[in-house]
Amino acid sequence: MQEKENGSMVNVAVDAMGGDNAPSEIVKGAIDAVNGKENIKVFLVGRQEAVEDALAGLSYDKSRVEIVPATEVIETAEPPVMAIRKKKDSSIVVGQKLVKDGICDAFVSAGSSGAVLVGGQFIVGRIKGVERPPLAPLIPTAKGNSLLIDCGANVDARPSHLVQFAKMGSIYMEYVIGIRNPKVGILNIGAEEDKGNMLVKETFPLLQNCPDIHFIGSVEARDIPGGAADIVVCEAFSGNVALKMYEGVGAVLIDEVKKGITVSLKSKIGAALIKNDLKKTLKRFTASEYGGAPLLGLNGLVVKTHGNAKAKEVTNSIYQCVTFKEQKINEKIKEKIRLGDE
Amino acid sequence: MQEKENGSMVNVAVDAMGGDNAPSEIVKGAIDAVNGKENIKVFLVGRQEAVEDALAGLSYDKSRVEIVPATEVIETAEPPVMAIRKKKDSSIVVGQKLVKDGICDAFVSAGSSGAVLVGGQFIVGRIKGVERPPLAPLIPTAKGNSLLIDCGANVDARPSHLVQFAKMGSIYMEYVIGIRNPKVGILNIGAEEDKGNMLVKETFPLLQNCPDIHFIGSVEARDIPGGAADIVVCEAFSGNVALKMYEGVGAVLIDEVKKGITVSLKSKIGAALIKNDLKKTLKRFTASEYGGAPLLGLNGLVVKTHGNAKAKEVTNSIYQCVTFKEQKINEKIKEKIRLGDE
Repeated sequence: MQEKENGSMVNVAVDAMGGDNAPSEIVKGAIDAVNGKENIKVFLVGRQEAVEDALAGLSYDKSRVEIVPATEVIETAEPPVMAIRKKKDSSIVVGQKLVKDGICDAFVSAGSSGAVLVGGQFIVGRIKGVERPPLAPLIPTAKGNSLLIDCGANVDARPSHLVQFAKMGSIYMEYVIGIRNPKVGILNIGAEEDKGNMLVKETFPLLQNCPDIHFIGSVEARDIPGGAADIVVCEAFSGNVALKMYEGVGAVLIDEVKKGITVSLKSKIGAALIKNDLKKTLKRFTASEYGGAPLLGLNGLVVKTHGNAKAKEVTNSIYQCVTFKEQKINEKIKEKIRLGDE
Repeated sequence: MQEKENGSMVNVAVDAMGGDNAPSEIVKGAIDAVNGKENIKVFLVGRQEAVEDALAGLSYDKSRVEIVPATEVIETAEPPVMAIRKKKDSSIVVGQKLVKDGICDAFVSAGSSGAVLVGGQFIVGRIKGVERPPLAPLIPTAKGNSLLIDCGANVDARPSHLVQFAKMGSIYMEYVIGIRNPKVGILNIGAEEDKGNMLVKETFPLLQNCPDIHFIGSVEARDIPGGAADIVVCEAFSGNVALKMYEGVGAVLIDEVKKGITVSLKSKIGAALIKNDLKKTLKRFTASEYGGAPLLGLNGLVVKTHGNAKAKEVTNSIYQCVTFKEQKINEKIKEKIRLGDE
């Protein structure tokens, strides 16, 4: 792996074509990041004309914004492996190659999750010793945030994978999010040690004996929103179920509450009065406030934002890349993984 | 299996000692059921004195309430298999034996989930041909309710188990809940057919080719609260994660909303005005309104209510038992399972 060493500048490739709001919101988010921090340079990857249109009217330091042409776009519905192989000139492939070639430190995309994950593994490549790179979204909790690791990159994982997830997640939460000695729980269906499926039962003692992490035992999904653990280690299938249910319930409940409090004139007046304070609360529970989900364990950083990401989530994701580089997260991961192999 | 045939009377054994609010709320719920429907007889299983104390002051038809003494109580923390074996005179063992012996049609408990499930399998016993009895809670959705099947009885399930869950769940939703031709989805991490773990990929074509059900394909956890399917088939581990996350997010979000709308004087006034309408909305999303979760595929019915169940949930669970018997659910399950084996 080569790494770009140009002082403290952080070079971030941004998939200008990915997601529901591309290219305008993506480009706007990237420019906001450039205007927000002096040590960021963005490489906007996508169709030249579309990117130029999105840039029109925005003001920014031109030396820190570069357009990298890519003529193709991978659609969400395309089978990921095939798409990565065939669409060599897609924004996802071209953007991830910038990371592989050491031109960029990180790649941010709101595009096809599958293609971003597959590209991460096969284009950017894994850190030596990392068996599977996990996708690790942060979810808002009553106490702050928790990292759900893994949420979609590797179904049917093995115990050794989950141990690596715990190590990488701990490094991320400590140095990117700033939680000292973060608590690691394993997602389980009961609090007792003998509960769980085969994978959990085999992984539990390995986590107990892992010296690098602060393992607190089983965590039930019910206790995640309350902030029971800083890092919740899980196999990708159940992690994805937990994440999607979290998002789904939130959306429906907020919707029903809004409907429920505007059925009568009395409650309509009440609703108008609580509007501002309610908004603040709900905002705290909106994932976009926290940037996208990192794909950890790669030779560089890949961040997947929500498909419906707006400028703010893109900006925050780019800021995440800065902290990631400044805190030398990958160097720390390499060290922990190497130690674990000895 | 023997079945008590005393006309249309439904005999329900109730674990008077199980759950956080036992015995008072449990006994109250049972008596409310007896007072609510003329064809219910309850057998209150537990410590005689405690049950008598709980009954004191309640008025009811004494010919339809019987106390069945059981001196022991299984605690939630006890390992279930051991507890069922050792505590022969516990309310869970004695109550389930009443079903096994054909004295009662059903058993309702708010006690240890593990012990209720283990007892269901080993005391009440499975219907011939049923490979695994699933625990199938109903969860409130934007459109009504969905049955999550299985949520805790059998981790590491096989594809054939999931097919039986789909059949039993369809019968339950059609005849107990009253949804014609209910839609069956399989819990998955993407909508496309090629998504998922090994279990889902193997089960998907079996469900597609199953003539007895209305299969609609994959359902993401995100879409469950919106009511995407009437029956969501899943392996117990991920089902339990989905269920617990559903409950956990709901609780935290409601709590945060309540806190969030009482931070300023303005919003406090607003909160007072919306209180009644908000309550109605939140009530619809409260699981206790719908009774407990049935354990399907047994020689009789076992219903597990929430550990914190109050009288209303107990009453509704007993009503569920009535519908279950009146609609001859087990006869229908036997027929479908038998047909599937040919």
